[in-house]
This record gives sequence, structure tokens and C-alpha cells, in this order.
Amino acid sequence: MAVYTSVSDDKLAAFLSDYSLGKAVSFKGIAEGVENSNYYLETDKGRFILTLFERRADPKDLPYFMAVKQHLAKKDFPCPEPIEGKDGVVLRELEGRPAVIVSFLDGLSPNRPNTAQCRALGENLARMHQALQDFTMERRNTLGPASWPVLWKGRSATAEDLQPGLSALIESDLDATAKARAQSPDLPRGTIHADLFPDNAFFIGDEFSGVIDFYFACTDALAYDIAVCLNAWAFEDGSEYNFSKGAALLAGYESVRPLEPSERDVLPTLCRGAALRFFMTRLVDWTDTPPDALVRPKNPLDYSARLAFHRKAVSASDYGYGA
Amino acid sequence: MAVYTSVSDDKLAAFLSDYSLGKAVSFKGIAEGVENSNYYLETDKGRFILTLFERRADPKDLPYFMAVKQHLAKKDFPCPEPIEGKDGVVLRELEGRPAVIVSFLDGLSPNRPNTAQCRALGENLARMHQALQDFTMERRNTLGPASWPVLWKGRSATAEDLQPGLSALIESDLDATAKARAQSPDLPRGTIHADLFPDNAFFIGDEFSGVIDFYFACTDALAYDIAVCLNAWAFEDGSEYNFSKGAALLAGYESVRPLEPSERDVLPTLCRGAALRFFMTRLVDWTDTPPDALVRPKNPLDYSARLAFHRKAVSASDYGYGA
Repeated sequence: MAVYTSVSDDKLAAFLSDYSLGKAVSFKGIAEGVENSNYYLETDKGRFILTLFERRADPKDLPYFMAVKQHLAKKDFPCPEPIEGKDGVVLRELEGRPAVIVSFLDGLSPNRPNTAQCRALGENLARMHQALQDFTMERRNTLGPASWPVLWKGRSATAEDLQPGLSALIESDLDATAKARAQSPDLPRGTIHADLFPDNAFFIGDEFSGVIDFYFACTDALAYDIAVCLNAWAFEDGSEYNFSKGAALLAGYESVRPLEPSERDVLPTLCRGAALRFFMTRLVDWTDTPPDALVRPKNPLDYSARLAFHRKAVSASDYGYGA
Repeated sequence: MAVYTSVSDDKLAAFLSDYSLGKAVSFKGIAEGVENSNYYLETDKGRFILTLFERRADPKDLPYFMAVKQHLAKKDFPCPEPIEGKDGVVLRELEGRPAVIVSFLDGLSPNRPNTAQCRALGENLARMHQALQDFTMERRNTLGPASWPVLWKGRSATAEDLQPGLSALIESDLDATAKARAQSPDLPRGTIHADLFPDNAFFIGDEFSGVIDFYFACTDALAYDIAVCLNAWAFEDGSEYNFSKGAALLAGYESVRPLEPSERDVLPTLCRGAALRFFMTRLVDWTDTPPDALVRPKNPLDYSARLAFHRKAVSASDYGYGA
């Protein structure tokens, strides 16, 4: 969590002259997001976030991410809305980096989401899926099932170092999810967030106030987004599944968009797959992050503990579906 | 520039319940200040900054710093005003650290202050001195002349590494400032900021909007504060004295509080002393900061270049006084 690129006041003033936002009255680097530089920006016209995209963001994906947020904002789904310059252009350049100004979203990210927040998250995940139903752009999920064996390659020793016996378990997860995928029917697809962790959701008290950080958004099975959220919202202290929270999240989702039988049946496999995806990227970060790095990598074992739960789950009701 | 201590939403809510500020609607770590953790905090009642004091702040100094800001705010001098809890207490504890909520100050810190901003800074430095005239608490300048030989001890080799011949020059600066001090008359004293660099001053355009970061404030010669500002505001690209900017700063100050002859006469020595103070602390940070630290130390040579200018200056007019 850091600001990687500093912006001089001259450059900021020049940048703002391309917008109809008036002049800056406040500008502070904020420690939000690990991949980009974000600034709190206040002008005569209100509060905004200025984002500079750093190395890890693929510039060719940025128009898609902007379009997702613009589409959601147009449908009144609360998210950071990209602000157009006087020329109608949203993605510009500042200090040699792609840059965008988005609207400021009120709310706080819950450290330990409660049951009411899990329910609200489920409801709004479904609303987001519905709002994106007529969004026509597509993006492949670059961290989908095909990527997992690639990420895994050559890392079984690292997994064994973390927890003896883990390597064989992960192999079995890869096999099982691949087999299940081959057999499962086509699931309803659409635009998903794919990374809706509690730090990417805002609440005021228990009231949902918006979603941020769409930089993993892609076209994939809608129910996979639910599986990501169950992993991210309903496990406590790294490993314990909180049945009430999971049930609340699923009930919230269903209150807006009821799951189809095919989605319900495949939920344990999707949860296992989502846990694998985060296990794999954390394992890569764990190995590749130098010990003196600014950002401490997250422990992959949080996700091997989740995988242990998913391996035993046999149906959606094990997650609180219909409870 | 980082957030060192994270604050959970539960702890924040409990902390806020001791205030009459309503509940949090936004809370973001900001990359401001290198010594403390600062958060942008918005509640039903407005915008604030929450500061958690980290290791380097001496807890016994904090009540003094709070009192300085409260005194200034009462006199309508723009600075972050410490907000009282329901019990009237300003300094509280959060996540095991002393913590304070202060009012939010609009404005941006200039990267390269222009002449108009230098003039405004001079004016407002004098206003600040006047507003603090009846402030009765005292604090010794722990980085005053007595500290310089202590900081210097054992570091001449480091100085030589940075620039051959520098060690002898610094010794001559220490001698000259000590001798001048012994001979100089008592100067008007009061409460000074002692660290009023451009990143601690806010402007909206060329309009001064406030001063932050009073964590070096102390009781000392008022003119020493001017000397710090001349070093911090009127040199460009590390070494070049911008006569117009220095003249504007001094004229601005004098437009509010004309210098006494004793202050005017000793200005070159005070400037040399102020440059020594920042040279010394930068030299210490340069030596003591591990290469993998979050905060990159500032180059002490910026201040040896300023010292070269001050060594040649013979009167206040060399700084643009009366120009």
C-alpha cells in the first residue's frame, strides 16, 4: 500500500485543465490498492480519486475496466465513475502513466464483515451482475482454470515447505476441478468482478455503499463471482467457515437473482476453484516477493485451509444455501 | 511516506464514540508525513485527519504540540485544529498509540513555490509568530546549536565520502556559528515552527491556506524561523539562491512584523545555522537509514550547497532584505 508515482502541482494543474472540474483545493496520496498510485483529489466541483496505473496494469485492458465502471454508473450501481475530460476522453496520461479521475465513493471497507454486511454484499453482487447483463464488451479471465496449472508449475516444493503433504492435495484439487469442469453444463455467464474481497466493498455501518477496484473484471460464469465472495467473506481467521455469513450472502444474492439449478449444483466445485486461484497467485507472490518489498505478501496457507473445507463440501447446502 | 499502523473498523467506531462527530463515512490511509500514520476521515460532521503517533514522537511533547495548534486555531490562524472528545480531551489512544483527530485543511503543498507563494509564506510566518505571542507554554529546541556538535561527532568520514573537503568546511561552520552566537545580542524569542518547509504549507493557487506538522515547534529566536524558511523556500535545484523569492519572503514577513536591527544583522549567521541543522539531521539519516527502508533519506549535500552560499553572505541584503 503505497504511492508509487508523485505528481507535481504544476503537472496536476495542467492535467486538470483538460477537465471541467475547476482547480484542486486538496490533493493527498492515499494508501489504497497495491498496484496503482491513488490520490484523494478535491476540486471546486467535489471529491474525486485520481489513479495512476503502474507497471502491473496492462494498458490495453484499461479501456475495458473504464467501460465496466461507466456502464455500472449509468445504471446507478455505486462504483467509482470515470470522469470525462472536456474532450469526452476518460483515460489520459499524467507523469508518464495512464491516469484517470473517478468519482469519490463514501464508505469503509469492513475488516471483519458481519452477517448483515454479507447479506447486503450478496444482494448487491446480484444487482451488479444484472446491471452488467447488457454490457457487450468481453475480457477473458486471465486467472481462470487454464492458468492454474501454469502458475503451479515448479512450485510444489514451495508448497511442501509451507505445509508437508500440501503438494499432493493441490494436485488433487487441480484434477478434481478440471474433471468437474469437463462434465458440468454451461453456466450463465456475464461480466464479473472476480476479486470482490471486503477491501473492495464499501459500507456505511451495515449499509452497502459501493464496489471499487474492477481490475480483475472479466467475462466468466456469474456463479464463480459468488464462489470468490464466499471464499473472501464467509471464512474467519483464515480457515473457519462461518455458515451464517455464507448463508446470508447466498440468500442476499438469491433475493435479487435466484440461482439456476446448474449453478447451485456446481457451487462446491466453483468454490474450490476460486480458492485454488487465490492460493496460486498468493503462492507466486510468496515466492517472488523480495523480503525487503514494500508490500508484504499474503499467506497462501489461508487458502489451503479453505480448500480443505471445499474438498469435503458435497452440495450448495454445505455453504448455507437454502438455510 | 506510509501508513504504519492499521486501524480496524471496530476500533475506529469505538474511538469515534468518544467524540461528537457522528459516524465514519470514509476512512483512508494517506501518505503524508514520514513519522506518523495519518488517515483521511470523513464523518457526518465533516472532514478530518486522524493521526496516530509512532515511535519517533516523544509522548511527553504531544500536549505541547496540541496546545500550539489549539492556540493558533483560536486566533483563526489556519492549522489543523485538534478536536476535543466529549470529555474535552484531545489526545487519546487508538491501536496502542497516542492518537488525535484534527480538522481538515484545504490546500496543496507547492513542489516549487513561486515568488507570490514565498511572499505569502513570509506574511503568514509573521502572523503565526504574532498569534503565538501570548502562548505561554515552552519547549526547548532539541535541534538547536548545542545539538549540532553532538550530531556531527564521528561523522566527518561520512561527510568526506559525500564530498572531499566537506569535513573541514563543516567544522568552520560550527566554529563560526558558535562564535557569532556568543557575541550576538539577545534576539526576540517566541514559539516557532522550526520546520516550515513547502510540504508543511498549503496553498490554493497562490493563496496561503494553512500550516501543518508542528512536531518540531519550540521556543527560540523568531528570526531563526525565517532562516529555516529562507533555506527551505528560496533555494532552487538544491543549491541556487533565488534572490527574488528570498526578497519576497522577507518583504512579506516585514509587511506584518518588521525585523529589529539585531535580527536583521544576524540573519546570515541564522541562515548558516539553520542549514547546519538540516545538514546534520540529514547526515544522520543518510548514515543510519538501512538501504531497504520505506523512506529514502534526503541528500545532505543539498544543505552543504546552501552552506556555501551562507558562508559568503555578509548582510541581510545578500538575501534580498530591503530589495
